[in-house]
Amino acid sequence: METLSTNRSHGGVQGVYKHQSSETGTEMTFSVFVPDHAEGAKLPVLWYLSGLTCTHANVTEKGEFRAACVEHGVIFVAPDTSPRGDDVPDDEGYDFGKGAGFYVDATQEPWAKHFRMRSYIEKELPALIAEQFPADMARQGITGHSMGGHGALTIALRNPERFRSVSAFSPIVSPLACPWGDKALTGYIGPDRAAWREYDACALIEDGARVPDLLVDQGTGDGFLADQLKTYLLSDVCEKAGQPAAIRMQEGYDHSYYFISTFMAEHVAWHAKRLK
Amino acid sequence: METLSTNRSHGGVQGVYKHQSSETGTEMTFSVFVPDHAEGAKLPVLWYLSGLTCTHANVTEKGEFRAACVEHGVIFVAPDTSPRGDDVPDDEGYDFGKGAGFYVDATQEPWAKHFRMRSYIEKELPALIAEQFPADMARQGITGHSMGGHGALTIALRNPERFRSVSAFSPIVSPLACPWGDKALTGYIGPDRAAWREYDACALIEDGARVPDLLVDQGTGDGFLADQLKTYLLSDVCEKAGQPAAIRMQEGYDHSYYFISTFMAEHVAWHAKRLK
Repeated sequence: METLSTNRSHGGVQGVYKHQSSETGTEMTFSVFVPDHAEGAKLPVLWYLSGLTCTHANVTEKGEFRAACVEHGVIFVAPDTSPRGDDVPDDEGYDFGKGAGFYVDATQEPWAKHFRMRSYIEKELPALIAEQFPADMARQGITGHSMGGHGALTIALRNPERFRSVSAFSPIVSPLACPWGDKALTGYIGPDRAAWREYDACALIEDGARVPDLLVDQGTGDGFLADQLKTYLLSDVCEKAGQPAAIRMQEGYDHSYYFISTFMAEHVAWHAKRLK
Repeated sequence: METLSTNRSHGGVQGVYKHQSSETGTEMTFSVFVPDHAEGAKLPVLWYLSGLTCTHANVTEKGEFRAACVEHGVIFVAPDTSPRGDDVPDDEGYDFGKGAGFYVDATQEPWAKHFRMRSYIEKELPALIAEQFPADMARQGITGHSMGGHGALTIALRNPERFRSVSAFSPIVSPLACPWGDKALTGYIGPDRAAWREYDACALIEDGARVPDLLVDQGTGDGFLADQLKTYLLSDVCEKAGQPAAIRMQEGYDHSYYFISTFMAEHVAWHAKRLK
């Protein structure tokens, strides 16, 4: 692991790092914020998965999470959203290929070699975080935005033993039921929609997956709400399944970091309470 | 005035606007954050002047001021740092010309026509803010970063009747005594260094200008501290002159928005107390 930068901020250290990933076969960049802590102490970890077109940098610069992470003593990890590099295949759209890994392990060509963001986030990067940072891996929470909200929900639902807490900002709740999901999962996983269900939060809950509870914030002024995000599908399935969930429609807020940063401190506090 | 964007954030509206400036002879872009407020209510205004290479966007995206502005009911205005456009002369350095207006009215060619950031910030933009926003212009404070810290200090020292409060993040405290100031003021104002004194916070205090008090935060890990910022010059002159000042050296912090955002909420609260 190579340190690209560290900056003191809010009573902690914001770092940006890169490493050679065996899962993606590329260099991967990620950021980690570590609050000041006693020598030898281990802190709980909150994962933040970013949305389409983003890298680690968007939330690192605009997310306004550091003050809350210091207040509650939480490490904040922000991975990239896909493999990068000249050797990595891409699509001309912003919603597929680079910057749009969708947190799946691709099975289709030419994507299968590099687009292994599921295994990267579920296995490889946690091992590196455990090794390199004062992280208590028995206390992990996960959140994310949009495509990263989809990532957070599906990864938590598939790995309830690993995550004590899960939340999301304006998540894609059902790739099976929206154009972004349709394009990405057709491309990465292929036309068999039954194979998509492990990458669809609503389908996972329908199929029996559960988390202790769930916090979702969604802006009512979000231009992607009606066609892509369809928050009501998650509300409906949680209600039917008896999955506890606080799904909050936030009046007038949009899809941007102006929205995310508004509710970030509440999400950090919500996770911290469950990671105590 | 044209609205370029508005985003709901933190219980207020973050807007970005542009207008045709008669001072600079160019279009000028700026941002304004207005907390939710009662119909007809007027709120105090905090000006934030940015540093070299910045536009309104840096602090608007990374400054973490909105939560504090809502808590205290303060409007936050972030202007650009220079005129822009193909007709505006420029320099190949990052520290002169576009993005580096230094908050002066230039007297030297080819700068004098457009580089009128002093009059723009002191006169033209306040009139527009008073006209377009629910701003109580009897309650104004000013802050800024680096070159913008220099701007905040010098504008407040020259206009004590207008500003009730002034603070700065890692300011250039004396353009007379650093390479950035030497290059910029030679270029904009000419070689007569006596004419620079109205653009030098230390010289203004030496020459008798006063403000009620002063808050400065400066990181000890700031790579520009020794050669450009020289905070001790301001400490010395304030002590000699009996100018009240809290000048805080912040251990390990650098020159970036990771530093600024750390102390932003304290600055907003400090101003709000004085703007009550």
